[in-house]
Amino acid sequence: MGGGTGALYLGVDIGGTKTRVGLVGPGHRVLEVREAPTPARDGPRAVVGVVAGLGAALRDRAEVAACGVGTAGVVDAAAGSVVAATDALAGWAGVALAGELTALLGLPVRVDNDANAFALGEAAGGAARGRAHVLAVTVGTGIGGAFVLHGRLWRGAHHNAGEIGHLPVPGFGDRPCACGAGGHLESVSAGPAMADRYRRLAGDAVSFAEVARRAEAGEAAAVVVVEEGGGVLGQLLAGLVNAVDPEAVVVGGGVAAPAGRYWAAARRQFHRHLLPAVAQVPLLPAGLGRDAVVVGAAELARRGLQGPPP
Amino acid sequence: MGGGTGALYLGVDIGGTKTRVGLVGPGHRVLEVREAPTPARDGPRAVVGVVAGLGAALRDRAEVAACGVGTAGVVDAAAGSVVAATDALAGWAGVALAGELTALLGLPVRVDNDANAFALGEAAGGAARGRAHVLAVTVGTGIGGAFVLHGRLWRGAHHNAGEIGHLPVPGFGDRPCACGAGGHLESVSAGPAMADRYRRLAGDAVSFAEVARRAEAGEAAAVVVVEEGGGVLGQLLAGLVNAVDPEAVVVGGGVAAPAGRYWAAARRQFHRHLLPAVAQVPLLPAGLGRDAVVVGAAELARRGLQGPPP
Repeated sequence: MGGGTGALYLGVDIGGTKTRVGLVGPGHRVLEVREAPTPARDGPRAVVGVVAGLGAALRDRAEVAACGVGTAGVVDAAAGSVVAATDALAGWAGVALAGELTALLGLPVRVDNDANAFALGEAAGGAARGRAHVLAVTVGTGIGGAFVLHGRLWRGAHHNAGEIGHLPVPGFGDRPCACGAGGHLESVSAGPAMADRYRRLAGDAVSFAEVARRAEAGEAAAVVVVEEGGGVLGQLLAGLVNAVDPEAVVVGGGVAAPAGRYWAAARRQFHRHLLPAVAQVPLLPAGLGRDAVVVGAAELARRGLQGPPP
Repeated sequence: MGGGTGALYLGVDIGGTKTRVGLVGPGHRVLEVREAPTPARDGPRAVVGVVAGLGAALRDRAEVAACGVGTAGVVDAAAGSVVAATDALAGWAGVALAGELTALLGLPVRVDNDANAFALGEAAGGAARGRAHVLAVTVGTGIGGAFVLHGRLWRGAHHNAGEIGHLPVPGFGDRPCACGAGGHLESVSAGPAMADRYRRLAGDAVSFAEVARRAEAGEAAAVVVVEEGGGVLGQLLAGLVNAVDPEAVVVGGGVAAPAGRYWAAARRQFHRHLLPAVAQVPLLPAGLGRDAVVVGAAELARRGLQGPPP
């Protein structure tokens, strides 16, 4: 099968805790999914083995044209290799992922970071379908993002584009950030940062999910923390829209549930700070749920068959 | 003359107070310049007349292939027209500038906003010469900017890309911004904003130039204001580098003199907040002085002869 319009692709989502592989068909439809825990502490050989195992099972059930991968870490998409990674995946930096998986699966393989795959998925078949210029954002334990410009990923000069979690938030310099500096978006608006802030204000060490629950129930300290986190996110996303001028912003991840106070505060501040020229740019909840990276990775594979790195 | 390597171009810089037209030769060299006050209150016909007059004088002294214009306001570069403008140029919105100047000068004309022309000038022949991906910033009475990506201007989905003056600065919401919102980069780090802040702190209404002079002399309130302005600029530029990942940042305009405390504070905060992958991205003072827009406008004209809108 040569990558025609009816072709099938494998989309792989390698996270710190789970690895998810989907068989994706025409119209970005996920036909079947296999999932397994990521053996994150056992080294890259074990992780690649899990991907190949899940992938081979799906490949053998259908005629698959190519495989795409979205993985945690900084990725050189042209080389198909991991440039840098956190401790979440031991020994992951330096892995020539495209080459290793091609050898194991017998398929052309494209690799990118998971935020880029998420953005491509949402832009191709999700909430931003049909838009050429998109900022996609994930809010969970960290905050990441990616830009699609002219329908293609803008990866940056150092594979770093989209790292919006480290936008400084002047006036919040007392909030420590995982990167070593202080007062970054991630240290105000990500889940663990808000749980930490709540612990300081209320003296109660609970998960962000519990803080969010208490905020929805109207508990004062929880409301302050959640609305501050969402509000700062909304302000900084408005700034990025003013400065980069996409057609839409898509937000996914575990923290920004569209029903709650976090999302409401984010929306309020977002619309308040947009310039007139971009006042109609929508802030959209992600549309593909936990399949977004799988769909984007499959799209990466599809485009890879059609020419140079997408 | 057909736009070959030895061709000459007119570059036009239309500002709220002055209009500057240069004859630009090979290697982005400015061979001759004519300047006149912009008749900003007399309507667009008067402004276009001044540009045509200055341009015709230079055109008649040399064989000129085309003309490029960088103007204040929001510009639709593909159409060559002004989409929106402030009161600084009365009636400027809606002017079909490329068409009118083509008729008056008998030359192909390309038009863009002045921040975009500044960026193209600095990227083609100034401080960022040889870089493919550049963020260019001007700091004066306002703060503007532009992105060059893959050697070309990224203009955004609504002609708005580069409007970094309206990046929100959470924690500084008490600073009124010209756009109507509060707590934007321009309302903390631009010249008039710092003069206003100094007036509130020290009770003395003086120009920013005087505040800067007092800061260099070590006067406490002036130092606080100037270092806050420069520091916030540096933080937000670092955030843009983390998020957009260019190869270099170029800063021009009247406020950010590389010798003073403002620039030192900007540099310090900039380098402090860069992620490891982009830690080597330099913060560069602009290299073309007051010719940057003229050089960039001429480059716009040169590229315009070579194909679709640059």
